[in-house]
Amino acid sequence: MDKIDTKKSSEVTSLEISSKGLSRRDFFKKTGAVSAVAAASVIAPTGVKAEDDHAIIHHPKWGQSWGDPVTKNRYGIPSKYEHNVTRRNTKLLASGNYRASIAVAPIHESDGIITANGLFFSRSHGGTAHIDPNEFRLMINGLVEKPIVLTLDQLKRYPRVTRTHFIECPANGGQEWRKPQYNSLQFAKGFMSCAEWTGVYIKTILEDLGLKPEAKWMLAEGSDNSEMGRSIPIDKVLDDAMLVWGQNGEALRPEQGYPLRLLLPGWEGNLCVKWLKRLEFGKEPWYAKEETSKYTALTPTGKAVQHFYANEVNSTVVIPSPEKPWTDLQDGDWVEIEGLAWSGMGTITRVDLSFDGGNNYVEANIKGLVLPKCWTRWSYMHQYKKGQKLLLTSRATDDAGFVQPTVDQEVFGYGVKKENYGKDKTKGMGVESVYHRNAIETWEVTANGEVNHVQIRTI
Amino acid sequence: MDKIDTKKSSEVTSLEISSKGLSRRDFFKKTGAVSAVAAASVIAPTGVKAEDDHAIIHHPKWGQSWGDPVTKNRYGIPSKYEHNVTRRNTKLLASGNYRASIAVAPIHESDGIITANGLFFSRSHGGTAHIDPNEFRLMINGLVEKPIVLTLDQLKRYPRVTRTHFIECPANGGQEWRKPQYNSLQFAKGFMSCAEWTGVYIKTILEDLGLKPEAKWMLAEGSDNSEMGRSIPIDKVLDDAMLVWGQNGEALRPEQGYPLRLLLPGWEGNLCVKWLKRLEFGKEPWYAKEETSKYTALTPTGKAVQHFYANEVNSTVVIPSPEKPWTDLQDGDWVEIEGLAWSGMGTITRVDLSFDGGNNYVEANIKGLVLPKCWTRWSYMHQYKKGQKLLLTSRATDDAGFVQPTVDQEVFGYGVKKENYGKDKTKGMGVESVYHRNAIETWEVTANGEVNHVQIRTI
Repeated sequence: MDKIDTKKSSEVTSLEISSKGLSRRDFFKKTGAVSAVAAASVIAPTGVKAEDDHAIIHHPKWGQSWGDPVTKNRYGIPSKYEHNVTRRNTKLLASGNYRASIAVAPIHESDGIITANGLFFSRSHGGTAHIDPNEFRLMINGLVEKPIVLTLDQLKRYPRVTRTHFIECPANGGQEWRKPQYNSLQFAKGFMSCAEWTGVYIKTILEDLGLKPEAKWMLAEGSDNSEMGRSIPIDKVLDDAMLVWGQNGEALRPEQGYPLRLLLPGWEGNLCVKWLKRLEFGKEPWYAKEETSKYTALTPTGKAVQHFYANEVNSTVVIPSPEKPWTDLQDGDWVEIEGLAWSGMGTITRVDLSFDGGNNYVEANIKGLVLPKCWTRWSYMHQYKKGQKLLLTSRATDDAGFVQPTVDQEVFGYGVKKENYGKDKTKGMGVESVYHRNAIETWEVTANGEVNHVQIRTI
Repeated sequence: MDKIDTKKSSEVTSLEISSKGLSRRDFFKKTGAVSAVAAASVIAPTGVKAEDDHAIIHHPKWGQSWGDPVTKNRYGIPSKYEHNVTRRNTKLLASGNYRASIAVAPIHESDGIITANGLFFSRSHGGTAHIDPNEFRLMINGLVEKPIVLTLDQLKRYPRVTRTHFIECPANGGQEWRKPQYNSLQFAKGFMSCAEWTGVYIKTILEDLGLKPEAKWMLAEGSDNSEMGRSIPIDKVLDDAMLVWGQNGEALRPEQGYPLRLLLPGWEGNLCVKWLKRLEFGKEPWYAKEETSKYTALTPTGKAVQHFYANEVNSTVVIPSPEKPWTDLQDGDWVEIEGLAWSGMGTITRVDLSFDGGNNYVEANIKGLVLPKCWTRWSYMHQYKKGQKLLLTSRATDDAGFVQPTVDQEVFGYGVKKENYGKDKTKGMGVESVYHRNAIETWEVTANGEVNHVQIRTI
């Protein structure tokens, strides 16, 4: 037994065994040592014994006819049986004609840290533009020694860099300041995805073109219908800002800004301007529409915070979730609780998991690659007790020193009026905060294994 | 100047500057220091000056109409302008009805280390099977304490692991033992791709089911038309063999074995049995069709080597390549030579690049994530000289201590009869070696920047 939470409540007596720091081999050994269940059946006790059912692997449909030729899909598509795994949108999230709208990613079905390009969430303000790469030009002007207009081929001649980063809409979870709106991981937290991006650091281009010392801001301008424009502080531009044309080993999809988008690792998705056509360098921000009327944070004083950019440390439980319940589990089954953590300010250093809505925590295992400003997987082995109610809450910490706040802490900092807290919204966003919601979230696991989105608060 | 190859030939005088070990900032500084070209124009001298052509960024088609609704493609597809970036096959590579055939990946268009799922190479022996995941069963029998039949949901309850690995057909480059057959990177080296895989280690399942000590081999059996069967030594099974259901964050595609395939990191793609239905553990290999009639290596003695599995250390230049020539470059342009390296035996530790077909080498930069049994990117900054002929050859080294052989070294080891060396094949594979070709490859860059696949040999 590697770790016992000394503060555990009576509800969490089944959680004494943490796999933290144990190899899988140790996990099974230790499981066998403390359990009356034989080591040979800890995970899959409900599988059919092979001797009883040999015929089942000779399914009559299998292997009796030719499959499809390899020539059938030169560009492959998912299995027809996966037709429900798609981006989705609802009227609640859509604006007008679904052009200024969002399609959220099925992150309840996600694995690892890469999101397949066909499932990457998409947000646009004037619809998905279709730019002919032969007509594409990128203009770089303003406070540079050598203003220039580049073709895509010319741009691609700069030294390439490949980095894996998430992109998150700052409104991820933003419908839920008052109370949970969606009993769904996809809709509650699916305004984000993560990919391997290839392009060029803007600092590389600026070393070539010569940035004038008085330049303090960069305008990024899109060629879409909304002519998206955002002002970026020069420090971020010279740190890790990229112009990217490649996503997961192929060209950006149209929904992601084909043929070129800005990538500001860890910062608001809205700043990562798609269908990019121009970068201008200047002394002051441009105060474009999307950085004045929107993408600001209302505080309780009635004033809004402007120029805040990085998506704060955050996390969610993926398995179980409302779409991935535990209704099929048997009493005593071991199951891996798995989730995501991410921070726009750095690298995830720790994830804690609570079974009682945040009163007591155990430390989870961080799994696989751990990269800055990137999705990070974590997990915790759990023995399911039939009938036991749980309140599953995850809480991430990053190497910038930030920890996810509680719902109460976050609401005190930003603009939900206390009298509206916990109430339904009437319509629209009103005058309340939308962005940068990163408070801990809670799934309620019911006695029969269903999972509901709930909110734990004290005010 | 960071590094000068003291053995350089007269042909490589333009290559004195290596960016090895230099930051990009240093690269530009040093470039400026040794070049008469102003530092502000080293890369993109052919871009149009912005002042002259401001209108070009206000393309009449851009931003004048709504784009597509975000609801249009719930599962996204590539831009229509990328319609030529697909898997491909030819009659030379196809067998019969294109079911026992291969579709090669457009690796000349690849970026980073992830291959998008739609472009992942596909090889099948009986066509692409379409398995209903609700009917799917995995049987595990033979020398295990608790033989079992599992549903997909039951299998997915084991602790998950995510790893990034390439899969390579051992016949990659296998048409070219005698001489280059394809003036194409896609066809010469595109029998491979790389992805993030999610599944469960087989050792985890065996800790649960109990492996009997006398078990020395595992049979993996597919449910496709060919009923693919391969015998795997138990050491590999207990090392890093996985059963995978996830690829780049979504379910495996049908061409990759949906819903479940075996993944043996670094080993022949053929061993990574798709549409998996059964694992059996036994004392001896099964000597299935594909491990006796095929997937063996003929030696010059006339005997074949059996049971050799890991894809050896290998590399290729991606930019330039026959599909990515330098015909648009101007004299004096700086350009990044970029390539891939990989080894089924471990991690890439070094890549060397030759401009004279392998007589002299400079050390290239290894870029981005460097992971075991995974594609690894490398690059080298080069100043293009118009009219200069080059013979570009890359040579990778892995941490198992292996270095790519020369063409001559490889041919002496395996079965191309010397009298046929350099000749056209008549038809089929004949009695010559096909698999595990990992000799250094050479691109000829002509005086006008075209790129041809050539072979450097002395016998």
